[in-house]
Formats: sequence, C-alpha cells, structure tokens
Amino acid sequence: MSAYDDAGDAGQRRSPAEETRTLVSSQTVGHLATVGDAGDPWCSLVAYGAMEDGNPVLLVSTLALDGSNLQRDQRASIAIHDPLAPGDPLDRPRITLAGGAVQPEGERAEAALDAYVAAVPGAGLYAGWDEFALWVLEVEHVHCVGGFYRVDTISPDEYHAAEPDPTAPVAAKVADLLNKSYSEGLLAIARELGGARGAVSAFCTGIDRYGIDLSCTGAGQSAPARVLFDDPLADAADVRPVTVELAQRARAMGA
Amino acid sequence: MSAYDDAGDAGQRRSPAEETRTLVSSQTVGHLATVGDAGDPWCSLVAYGAMEDGNPVLLVSTLALDGSNLQRDQRASIAIHDPLAPGDPLDRPRITLAGGAVQPEGERAEAALDAYVAAVPGAGLYAGWDEFALWVLEVEHVHCVGGFYRVDTISPDEYHAAEPDPTAPVAAKVADLLNKSYSEGLLAIARELGGARGAVSAFCTGIDRYGIDLSCTGAGQSAPARVLFDDPLADAADVRPVTVELAQRARAMGA
Repeated sequence: MSAYDDAGDAGQRRSPAEETRTLVSSQTVGHLATVGDAGDPWCSLVAYGAMEDGNPVLLVSTLALDGSNLQRDQRASIAIHDPLAPGDPLDRPRITLAGGAVQPEGERAEAALDAYVAAVPGAGLYAGWDEFALWVLEVEHVHCVGGFYRVDTISPDEYHAAEPDPTAPVAAKVADLLNKSYSEGLLAIARELGGARGAVSAFCTGIDRYGIDLSCTGAGQSAPARVLFDDPLADAADVRPVTVELAQRARAMGA
Repeated sequence: MSAYDDAGDAGQRRSPAEETRTLVSSQTVGHLATVGDAGDPWCSLVAYGAMEDGNPVLLVSTLALDGSNLQRDQRASIAIHDPLAPGDPLDRPRITLAGGAVQPEGERAEAALDAYVAAVPGAGLYAGWDEFALWVLEVEHVHCVGGFYRVDTISPDEYHAAEPDPTAPVAAKVADLLNKSYSEGLLAIARELGGARGAVSAFCTGIDRYGIDLSCTGAGQSAPARVLFDDPLADAADVRPVTVELAQRARAMGA
C-alpha cells in the first residue's frame, strides 16, 4: 500500500507512567484494600482525589470498617479503572497503587483536602465532621494491567514524577467534534503531515497532549497515521485551537 | 390529599438479603482484596460468577498477584456495586462479601466453572489453562452499604438462603415500555388496585418480583402506590404478561 509508506504508528506517546497518572486523574472512585483486625483483607468502595504527585487522598469515617482498619494498620492499596470504558472489563487498563497511608498535617492537610474536595462533589458535607479522617496513600508500588496478560510495573519515582495528560478530559469530545464537522481538515492533516498521501478520508481515533491519531482510508484500505503537535499541550483549552491550526497549515501546504 | 388515602408504600418488598443477592447476580465484575506475602492488603479487579447459594466463583491466574496471594492465604473479600447506577457513587448500594476461598472439586468444580463461564464472556479462552485456578469464596460475612451512612449486616445464612430477584434483568426495560406505551393500563392499576382513585396519570417507577411501584399524579400532587402481584414472579419472562393481566383486570374493574 504505497500511498501509506510514511504513515503509521510513529512519534512520541504517553509513557506507561503518564498513562497511569492520567487514569488516576480521570477517576474519582476506586476500591480500597485494608487489613482487618484479624489480618484479613477488607475491600471497600472509596472516593478519592489525587495530590500533585499522584498520591491518592481519602476521607473515610473512623466508624466505617475501612476507616477503622486504617487507624490500626496503615497499609493499603487502591485499585482504579474506568468502569465506562468500552469492551471486556478484563481487557481494560487498570492499576493498583499500594503503600502506607498517613494523616497529613498543616499545609499538606490543606492541599490534601483541596484535592479531595475538587474530585468528590458533596464532600463539603462531611469534610469537617470529627469522625472523618483524611489520609494520603503514599504510593510505594504501582501495578499496571494494560489488559489481558499485559502487566507493567512502574517505579514509584516514575509515577510521582509523571504528569497526567491535561488534554484527557476533553480529548474524546474534540475528536468527536472534528470527525463530525471538520473532515476536510483531518484529511489535509493526514495527507500533508501524516504521510498518507493517497488517503481520501481520515477519521480521528484519538488525541493526547503529544499529537493526534488518525485512521486514513484510500484505495479500499485503511492505515493509521500519527501527527505530533509542535510542543506538548499544557492545557485542555489548547486542544481545539492547536488542532485547527494544524489543519490550516496542512491545507495551505496542499493548496 | 384524600384521593390517596389507601395509596403509599405498602406491601411486601425484597429483603436486604434479597437485594444483596440480586446485586451480586446482576454484576460480573468486582474488586478483590487478598493478603500479600508481607500481610499487606492487595486490591485487584476480578470477574466473577455466582453459585446457586450466592458464593462468588473466581478464576484467577496463579501468575497474577491476587492469584498467588490466594494460593498462600485463602482469606479474601470482594466488593460489588453497579457502576452504571445513577447518582453519587458514595450514595449507591454496594456490598462486601468476605470469607475463605476454596478450590472446589468434582461436581462442585463443574458447577463453579459453569457459574463462572455463564457470567464471564470469553472465559472459555483461558478456563482450561493450567495456571488458572478456580476458587469459590465461601461467604462468612456480608456487609451492605445502602448509601451514605446506611449499613446493614446480613447473616451468612440469610444471604445463602435468599434468592436473587429473577425479574431484575428485565424490570427496568419493562417499566420503560409500560411508561411509553401503556399509560392507560398503569392509570387503571393505580386507580383500581393502588388506591389512588383521584389519579389522572401514573408512572411506573419500578418492578420487582413482588409487585409494581407507581408514582400517581392528580390534583397537582403526586404520591407513590404499590400494587402486589398475586404470587411472586419466578421468571423474567413473566413480568410483561403478569403486568398486562393486572392492567386488564384493573380496567375491567373501572369500566
């Protein structure tokens, strides 16, 4: 398929640590494992926020089993996935973060509470109650399951240093918009910047802070193309203008 | 509101044990807490099926962390909720089942595998692989959170003896259908059988094996009504004919 010689899966992508931080930032509900009073494992649904370094923040009642477990034994792990992701749940990316929970103090407590309240609507209701304790899970182990039989372990340092992709909250929506109302622009990007010279149509399959993924069709076949942005995007609000600018540049090249 | 003197929240409903069994039967994905090699709690996403007595069946790889944890320490708990239920996740019904996992043998192993495969599409792919171990979690403790600060504990005997509501898989769909295309029948049920004589419209808010819940409106106000079926339904296929028969009887009474 010579029309696609230069196309394909090239260019920088999110690292496993960035994928993990992006997943953690995109969710606010996970499941917590704590140690019961007989050393038995206890699983409970929790809401969480994430600190700047990716450590999860919990606010749990000391009257609840998980909350009283943490008072006694601070070891914990939290499992997070996107329950709305399509496809078989067992073939879906999911992670477990394990470590020790600490009760933050001073400025760190304020930052932790801010992170929790930002993530959990309605937390204001019980955030001030005496029996609710604020915990930060200091992540010491990161276990990533990419899908069926695909497991990565990321070092805690990599996890803490990585950034969540700031474009994730809007990426799917912008991709949808581009596909619905900007197909000529996408085709120009595919042809002029994605190396898919023979393409007759292009469909946006994903956007991240580093670039845009396209599925290009021509001569009855389709192939992927990836086009990088000039600089990684720092803000969700940049996705639309940068993509439109990319399309304009491509159309000028093809004119 | 004299028109509704006889209406309201009367009649048999699912017990907490039945609600719990119904939730367990309606889901196939939960989160498992197991004990790590240092006694640390490990949380992981798992698929499960349910035995006739409600004990969850797992099929996990001994190469995975949760699977190797179970080989060493059979204590486990599984947390289950409906991630697609509307509203705040923290105000949503959820349960934790805790106990000891055992590897079933003989006929029990066959029944367990059948239950797992029935619940988990694609399990046929790895069900026969050597490194996958079949476990039945023998439930010894049932912890139900009905919502924010609403906790029930059900005895294991109650849990095992209760039945999942067989109408649950179709109830929402039938209610939707009745509301869309059978409003006269619902109004007749509300007026003639639900005690809401002054109602001018009725909306089905829920169906279970014991009866139908309606929200009845008249004179600018609304009130709930509940109408029981003659006998608890034993099969999902009975919901539509029994509801239609109820409406026909009500319309004959009002004619």
